[in-house]
This record gives sequence, C-alpha cells and structure tokens, in this order.
Amino acid sequence: MATALSTSVADTCRAARRAARELAQIDSARKDAALSAITRALIERTDEILAANALDMELGREAGLGDALLDRLALDASRISMIARAVQDIVALPDPVGEVIEGRRLPNGLDIQRVRVPLGVVAVVYEARPNVTIDATALCVKSGNAIVLRGSSMATHSNATLAQIAAQAAVAAGLPEGCIGLVSGGGREELAQLASQNDTVDLIIPRGGEGLKAALQEVATVPVIYAASGNCHIYVDATADLERARAIVLNAKTQRPGVCNAVETLLVHESVLAGLLPGLLGALGDAGVLVRADERVRAFADILSEERTTLGEGRRHCEVAIEPATEEDWATEYLALTLAVGVVDSAQEAIEHISRYGSGHSEAILTRDTDAARAFQLGVDAACVYVNASTRFTDGGEFGMGAEIGNSTQKLHARGPIGLRELCTYKYLVSGDGHVRG
Amino acid sequence: MATALSTSVADTCRAARRAARELAQIDSARKDAALSAITRALIERTDEILAANALDMELGREAGLGDALLDRLALDASRISMIARAVQDIVALPDPVGEVIEGRRLPNGLDIQRVRVPLGVVAVVYEARPNVTIDATALCVKSGNAIVLRGSSMATHSNATLAQIAAQAAVAAGLPEGCIGLVSGGGREELAQLASQNDTVDLIIPRGGEGLKAALQEVATVPVIYAASGNCHIYVDATADLERARAIVLNAKTQRPGVCNAVETLLVHESVLAGLLPGLLGALGDAGVLVRADERVRAFADILSEERTTLGEGRRHCEVAIEPATEEDWATEYLALTLAVGVVDSAQEAIEHISRYGSGHSEAILTRDTDAARAFQLGVDAACVYVNASTRFTDGGEFGMGAEIGNSTQKLHARGPIGLRELCTYKYLVSGDGHVRG
Repeated sequence: MATALSTSVADTCRAARRAARELAQIDSARKDAALSAITRALIERTDEILAANALDMELGREAGLGDALLDRLALDASRISMIARAVQDIVALPDPVGEVIEGRRLPNGLDIQRVRVPLGVVAVVYEARPNVTIDATALCVKSGNAIVLRGSSMATHSNATLAQIAAQAAVAAGLPEGCIGLVSGGGREELAQLASQNDTVDLIIPRGGEGLKAALQEVATVPVIYAASGNCHIYVDATADLERARAIVLNAKTQRPGVCNAVETLLVHESVLAGLLPGLLGALGDAGVLVRADERVRAFADILSEERTTLGEGRRHCEVAIEPATEEDWATEYLALTLAVGVVDSAQEAIEHISRYGSGHSEAILTRDTDAARAFQLGVDAACVYVNASTRFTDGGEFGMGAEIGNSTQKLHARGPIGLRELCTYKYLVSGDGHVRG
Repeated sequence: MATALSTSVADTCRAARRAARELAQIDSARKDAALSAITRALIERTDEILAANALDMELGREAGLGDALLDRLALDASRISMIARAVQDIVALPDPVGEVIEGRRLPNGLDIQRVRVPLGVVAVVYEARPNVTIDATALCVKSGNAIVLRGSSMATHSNATLAQIAAQAAVAAGLPEGCIGLVSGGGREELAQLASQNDTVDLIIPRGGEGLKAALQEVATVPVIYAASGNCHIYVDATADLERARAIVLNAKTQRPGVCNAVETLLVHESVLAGLLPGLLGALGDAGVLVRADERVRAFADILSEERTTLGEGRRHCEVAIEPATEEDWATEYLALTLAVGVVDSAQEAIEHISRYGSGHSEAILTRDTDAARAFQLGVDAACVYVNASTRFTDGGEFGMGAEIGNSTQKLHARGPIGLRELCTYKYLVSGDGHVRG
C-alpha cells in the first residue's frame, strides 16, 4: 500500500498535527471541493476498492468469520456508491468552523466573541465496517480536523485502499498532506501507541463494542469520548394513550433491534396493565419478541391466558414467549428481539428504576399528564429524554445535525449524537484598542 | 468536627450523588436562598472560623511554613466578610440550569430542545487558600451540582469549619443533605480514592500547582479538567502603536505577575525594535523586571547602551537587567517579574513560536494591520486570542461570566474560564404525539 500507510503511529499522528494547523484555517469552499473530489475518486476507483475488499473477504472466510461479520465487511458497487453519496450529504451541511457562538461588548469596551474552531487531530478507532473509513474522514475534514484512522485488522486492505483514495483526492484538491492518516495493523500495541499520543492527538472516538472500549480505557491518556451502551426504557404512564403506546413500544423494540437507541426495558404503570398488555403482548409475539417479565406481569399474563382459554378466545397473546426477568435483565442491553417488562406504581418509581439501571442514552415516557411528563424530563438524567415518542429518534440525522460519528453517553463535552459541532472546540477572540487591566 | 466530615471518601461521594439528583431539580429561588443563608452563617459564625483558622496557623508555624504560605492560609474578619460577599455576587448571576441552548421543530413534527442541566457531582481539589472552600461551593450550588471538597492538609480545620457552616446553612434552607461534602485528610491516598469514584463523581477540578496535577494525572479515572500553566505571549507587530504596546506589555507583565494570564514572553517584530525597546526596557527596569533576551535583542541593547553613554544621555535603559535567554526560557511560565524577549521577522514567525512554546492560554498581537490581526486570530490555537489588549483580561469576572472556578487550557468541554455554564452539561428533550420512526 501507500508509503504513508507504513509509517509509524507517532509519525502518522505528527503529520496529522502539522496538517491540522493548516486545515483549521481552510475555508468551507475548499473543504467542500476536497470532499467532492473524494466522492468522485471513490466512484472512479471502485474496482480498486472491490479488489482490496475481495482480499479481506477471502482472508475472512479462511479465518472462519461468520456470515454476519462477512456481510459487515463486504463491499459492492452499490455500497461504494452509497458511501460516496454519504460524503455529498456532509458537503451539504453547514460548516461549524468560525461560527460565532456568542459575542458582546464588555463594559470596558473590549469586544469578545466565542468562536467555534476545530479540535485539531481526531483519531477514530473502529471495527469491521469499511464505510466508517470514509464517513469519519468526511466528518473530520468538514469540521476542519485532521483524522487518524485505525480500523479492524479484518478490513486492513479495504480500509487502506479507501483511506489512500481519500487522502490522494484530498491532497490533490488542496488539503495539506497528512490530513487523512491511517494506522495500519489492528494489534493492541498500535492501539496503545495511538491512545498515548497526547502531544499530537486531541480526541479519540471509539466505534465498536465493549471489548474495544475496555481495551482503550486501560491504555488511553488522550481524551476519549466513550459511547456507552444504550439500555433504553419506555415508561407507559397511567394516563398514556394506549393505542399510541403499543405502536411506540413495537417501533422502539422491533424497527431495528440491534442499535443503541432501541428500547430494552418497558415499564408499565400498574393501572394500565389490563389495557395495554393483551394487545401489546400479541403484537410483540407476532414480531418474534421474547419477553422477560417481572412477577406482576407474569401473573397478569397467566390470568389473561386462563381467561382466554376458558372463553375459547384462542391463544393469540400466548404466542409471545414470557420468561421470568432476573436482576441482570434490568441492566442488559439485549440488542436483540428481547424485551424486559416490569410493573411500577408511579412515574417516580419508573424514574428511580431508570436512574438505577439506565445507561443515560434515551429514555421515554408515554403519558397525557403534563405533570408526569415534566417530572420525567426533569428527573431522568440521560442524553435524550422523550415524551410520547419512540426512543429510536436519537440519531444525528434525525436530530437535524446531519451525520454523526457516534453517540455519547458522557456528560462532558458532547452528550447525545456527535456531529460536526461536537468535533469542534471554541476559542475566545478579544479585541481592544490598547486595553490594559486596572 | 461534624460526623459528616469523618465519613469515608466513598460515602461522602455517594451522599453527594444522592443529593445531586434532588439538587438538579431545585429552582433558582431556593438555591439563591440557600446561598444567602450561607452568607449570613459565615458572618454570624465568624468567631468559629477564626478559631479554626488560628489552629491551622499555629500548626503551620510549628511546621515551619513560609510567610507567603501563612498569608495564603490566614483569615481575619475582613477576609471572611469578603468571602461572604463573594457568595452574594454568585447569587446575583443568572442560573444556567434550564437554559434552552437551542430548540426547533423537526420536519416530522417532533419538538427538540437542548437544555442545560447540572453535571451532577463536582469534586474540587485545592491547595491552601480556605476561601476556595466557599467560592467553589457557591458556584456548584448555583449551578445545581453537589460538591465534594478536598483541600490541603494545612487548612484542615479552616476548611472543615467553613464546609460545615455552609452545609448546615444550605440544608437548613432546604437543600438536600450531602450536597456539600468534604473529604478530610489531605493525603495522597484520599486523593487517589476520590479520583476513582467513577460511579458517583462526574468531574474533578484541581486548583493548584503542577505537583497536584501530576499526582491526579497518575491516579484519576474520573474526568478531570486540568488548567495547564499559562505561558502567555505578546507579539508586537511591525505596525503596532508603540506607545500602547509599551503600556500593554508593562500591564501584562507587572500588574500581577504571579497569575496565569500574565505575559511571559514578548516577541518583537525586528522593524520596531528601535522604536519600542528603549522606552520599554527602561519602564520594565523601573518596575523591577528581569529581561531574558535573545541575541538580537541583546545586540540592540548593547548598541543603545553605547550610544547613550557616548551621547551622555545617562543609563536609564541600562537599569534593566538583561540576561541571555536559553531554550528553556521560551517554555517557562515565570509567574514572577521576569520576561523573555525575542525578535521575529514576521507575524507568521511569531505564530510559529507561539505554536511551539505556548500553553494555549492567552496570546496577544499588537498591530494596526488587519491582515496580521486576522492571521494571528486564525493561526494561534489558544483559549483566548487578543488583538491590541493585555492578556490579563482572561478571567471569568472580566469576561462577564461572573466568578470562575478555574481556567481551562484543554480543548474538550470547557476552554478558558470555567464559570457556571461550564459546570453544566445538557440533555435533549424531545416531545411528540405518538411519533414512531419509519
């Protein structure tokens, strides 16, 4: 591969730092032109990307990767075209750099502005999917940051080719050499090296599972924004519109169960058990959802089951599999068609439960009671708190921020979707005409 | 002291966490009433504070503390009254909690708001000065955060009494028990314990020297906002108004040399050496400043000296002591009446110098050239970049943020003064009427 890709971790980061100083001052038009050049290069050089990807796929099959992992790794012309189009979506977003966040004249006449500026060098550490190579690069370039990429060893060839194509196109379009760097080698040693380049790297964003996060937490001295897991809750309050509630719970659980904003625990006010559960359990069962329920839910389901059997109404609601929930279930992010269901006696009890087990990602209350909605929004400490909507909306795209590079459950710097603005810091620009402090 | 103060570090932090959940929901009026109660209690119980302080002073004298440290430690009725008044200044500031930072209706009709909320539990680790106990407490209470204080062992009795008075007044005024906690014992073991309470502490802010920061960096797993040193520069450009330049340099160096926003290095464009130095060196000499200069400055000073001796103009400018600057000088935060002075041939060279040696705190250009001003503001990567003003203005009070708890040279979360808003995070509140994701 390119010589740039065989340099050491420290060299790659130093080159990125040098590039970052220049990149921070480049105007939107030139950054957008470079991104468009990347789009074109990806399309024009599709065959190279496919050849590199075929090599990764072959090695992956030899290594015995499962079908799901191979599918995440696989590229074809249509996927490459989607990756290229996603870059153009980022071109269309407003440039965050230079935005005056606030400004005023101080009593002494000094003019002060707080202005958004790039962080500098952002390292993105990610697993399998090669599209992240380009998505993350586009977000960093647009926000004026140099990027250091470190992908999975499984996608070595695909990532190297994608990064090389992007870097060549960007530099040809006038961006500084080194602004898109790739750390080759997926080993833990490279990760540890990258995670300790405090002089040259401003932020590390991991995109991957808990294993990657644990590995980083052990070695990182550079600041990291961790996206903790999304153990998301929906609480159906006493006054909820139950028809809406069924639709929202079904959506939040089944529309895409493998993502962090899918609901994992449903809390139901005891007074609406009878109204909500019969229809909801049937619909969940139809969607293939396994329910892990507390005692009160199970007792209710048993009664239901008996009644219906007696009345000959059939087994519709029995089609859902119900197992007992253990303490562990309340803390589990299933990322699968499994839903924990528990009963609470008040909105306050729901808030307590979420405070104890939630991961601070996305939490929803379904209610018609303004007091309950307000108490929930005030009392739940999470990145996103919903009233009468599915938790599935937590997403940079849905929130109107354009693309996102991850989703933060931290409280410092960025909380919720990490978009272009969250890849920036700010500085104070202060102007006077000879001001001295008295 | 109070039983609350003899509990373990983990217990204190857990109590603060519990308090924080309640405190986050308390309205401004109640927080302000509690702060006013603290003000009154400090005045009413001045004798207790003085007694505790006398004990610390006695132990300090026995331990052989120097006069400067003893002065930092000493309290009297007037200093206590100042501490109490500073709390009232914080009462007068707007409450940052609940501020809608931005909000809009999404295309699908969801209403989304980004709202400022407290971080939760803030730990403040500080050295000697007992007033920090109250200053930091007032800032945290106002911003809805519980605080865990860990002061220096030298001020154990003063800090314990101040924290106890504040906690009792706050709780009597309706704030939750545990919202103001103090970790007693100034040992490194307590520090390490405090710095690893990830489940209960959201942020640690150290206020102290490099030793404290190094100690924290070794043990902290909780996020820390470090205030790096302020190696601040003033660059006098070719077109600068030289009379203003003299006044600004003098102000930035001598008005309060021991603080982080004082200037440490002066960079002078070669074309204004002759215009600037004669008067400036004299004034610096009069103010007792030692100059550590590069070769070109020294050569120029020699010529000056010879000329004046020849012309019999006296030794005015010779009164300033000039020593050769070493490589180390450019990187040194003197915090004293010493100034490194170097010559550059362009604004770009000044920017390069600052990029290499600066600590990202406060940097100034003095110029009449708009292009140079713009290049400097764009090219210098620091928390505060000044045009035609003294670096001494970097301060939460001066910036109109009210009080500050420190000054950050980090890029993540908070850069520059850390005021009430910087002690907050945000959450997204999203409201719909049954919205599901398609």
